[in-house]
Amino acid sequence: MDLLKSMRSDFENYLQSYLDDLPERPAKLYDAIKHILSSPGKRLRPLAALLGYYVFDNDYKRALPAALAIEIFHNFTLVHDDIMDRAEMRRGQASVHVKYGTDTAIMVGDVMMIHSIRALLLLDEEVNLDLVLDHFTSTSSGICEGQIFDMEFEKRKDVNSKEYLEMVGLKTAVLLGLSFQSGALIAGVEEDQAEPLFEFGYAIGLAFQIIDDWIDAFGDSSQTGKVRGGDIKQKKKTLLWIIAMENAEEEDKAYLENVMREEAITDRQIERVLQLYHLYDVSGIALQYADDILAGAKEKITNSDIAKDKAELLFKIADDLVKRMK
Amino acid sequence: MDLLKSMRSDFENYLQSYLDDLPERPAKLYDAIKHILSSPGKRLRPLAALLGYYVFDNDYKRALPAALAIEIFHNFTLVHDDIMDRAEMRRGQASVHVKYGTDTAIMVGDVMMIHSIRALLLLDEEVNLDLVLDHFTSTSSGICEGQIFDMEFEKRKDVNSKEYLEMVGLKTAVLLGLSFQSGALIAGVEEDQAEPLFEFGYAIGLAFQIIDDWIDAFGDSSQTGKVRGGDIKQKKKTLLWIIAMENAEEEDKAYLENVMREEAITDRQIERVLQLYHLYDVSGIALQYADDILAGAKEKITNSDIAKDKAELLFKIADDLVKRMK
Repeated sequence: MDLLKSMRSDFENYLQSYLDDLPERPAKLYDAIKHILSSPGKRLRPLAALLGYYVFDNDYKRALPAALAIEIFHNFTLVHDDIMDRAEMRRGQASVHVKYGTDTAIMVGDVMMIHSIRALLLLDEEVNLDLVLDHFTSTSSGICEGQIFDMEFEKRKDVNSKEYLEMVGLKTAVLLGLSFQSGALIAGVEEDQAEPLFEFGYAIGLAFQIIDDWIDAFGDSSQTGKVRGGDIKQKKKTLLWIIAMENAEEEDKAYLENVMREEAITDRQIERVLQLYHLYDVSGIALQYADDILAGAKEKITNSDIAKDKAELLFKIADDLVKRMK
Repeated sequence: MDLLKSMRSDFENYLQSYLDDLPERPAKLYDAIKHILSSPGKRLRPLAALLGYYVFDNDYKRALPAALAIEIFHNFTLVHDDIMDRAEMRRGQASVHVKYGTDTAIMVGDVMMIHSIRALLLLDEEVNLDLVLDHFTSTSSGICEGQIFDMEFEKRKDVNSKEYLEMVGLKTAVLLGLSFQSGALIAGVEEDQAEPLFEFGYAIGLAFQIIDDWIDAFGDSSQTGKVRGGDIKQKKKTLLWIIAMENAEEEDKAYLENVMREEAITDRQIERVLQLYHLYDVSGIALQYADDILAGAKEKITNSDIAKDKAELLFKIADDLVKRMK
């Protein structure tokens, strides 16, 4: 799609001038910021911000500062999350705390958080900065809460799929919601007009997370290039595992529970968990969740006063996403 | 002084309603924020913000959101600095990362940083939010840079007193500068009118740090309740140590250098370092630094268009500070 290509290239240029303008010193700090922001990402959130604007007005470049702010913020959360999750790799490279040390990584995140706010100050004067900042900061604060809930969940064994989806929503999906919503607010629409776009982004974010989990267990390895069951190996309590727990017979439930307590998980055990996922139709249930979530979001857009051609564009993006699954 | 008392009590009430309005969950996160913000502090920075406003207009309560923002921001830096410095105590209590764990402490700091920005959104509509935020975020970002420089300094052995004061300036004094300046900007004065107040706060902050170092080595233990030479015991390269290094004969310089490399420092060694401080008039040189800095700041205020009675008030505050030393 040509529009998305232009948006992507406009964003990359905008990001590059931000990176070029960073101070030279302290070298460690700004090297690290350049390192993480230059590494190729999908740039989903910046594109969402530009699309959220485009739905109401064609001149989407006005939303570039918000696209930048959200991308910087997102990467700040990755830097601090990787410290907390003891993650050693990120996008195929050493994570910031591994490469630069934990102390520097804490500061790198802090500076990025501050820079994300500074990026919003680049919005033009016609924008209601107060309103954009209000949503930006309340959502960001919620994302940090989500990270804490996530850490708490790791210790609980009775999390149900509803709670899990709420946590994922709070920790990740809201940021995609905020992206679309910020774009809309910058285009100058009222808060209640921007709301369906928040919901739409939130739904996409949630569906995206479900799809990520799904691909790990059911994806075609020849296409993903990954070994199936990586999440199981890492003992991640994904939505799939929770769905299995909710549907399994006592004996299988005990097996699923015990596997998460193992020191190291063998290939045989991964195979057995995947068998149980098949037995209890975890794939079908997860796909149904994603479908329902996206259908609900589309309905919100249809019932809003968003122009029909713009709504179609949003739907196409949602559908492309789900195609990865089926 | 009655004015300062009223300001203090207005600030404590304002802070308390912020704390009362915090969400209940995640309990750990918000307990920690309440823990650190309720612990009694000098509230220097909030008072500075209110004074910066008061210099231009009596209705200083309009600056309360900025006073709150700066206090939350300051405490955020303490939470993250304590992690990096492996500091176990803060104001006589366990530091946040000791009490709640490092992972939670990282998140606590992040949420406080975001909340500090949110507090600024409580400023009334007449305030130029864009301008206040611009100074707030550029100063905060500089403070994080200062923390990195500080970590780098710890590893260098050739830091001179000019560089040291620059680092302290960047890491701590700028925040007191920002406090006075924000108050002034909220009162509606132009940027160049607010500038002398930034300089004044910066100077007070710098002098305050010098005085803190001075008291540790030369203060009256019967009044401070602390054993002399605590900084030497902790192998801190304070301004005093740097001044001594700059003035000492080769043999004494070697001694001062070696002491910083010891595993643990004995009372005899502390005594010897203090003797060298006396020998090279480190106290006199440090006091002269503080005097010069404050005199320069007062001159900036005198040469500005700040009303004479308000200028006198600022000078009295500066003088009270220096009295602690002499």
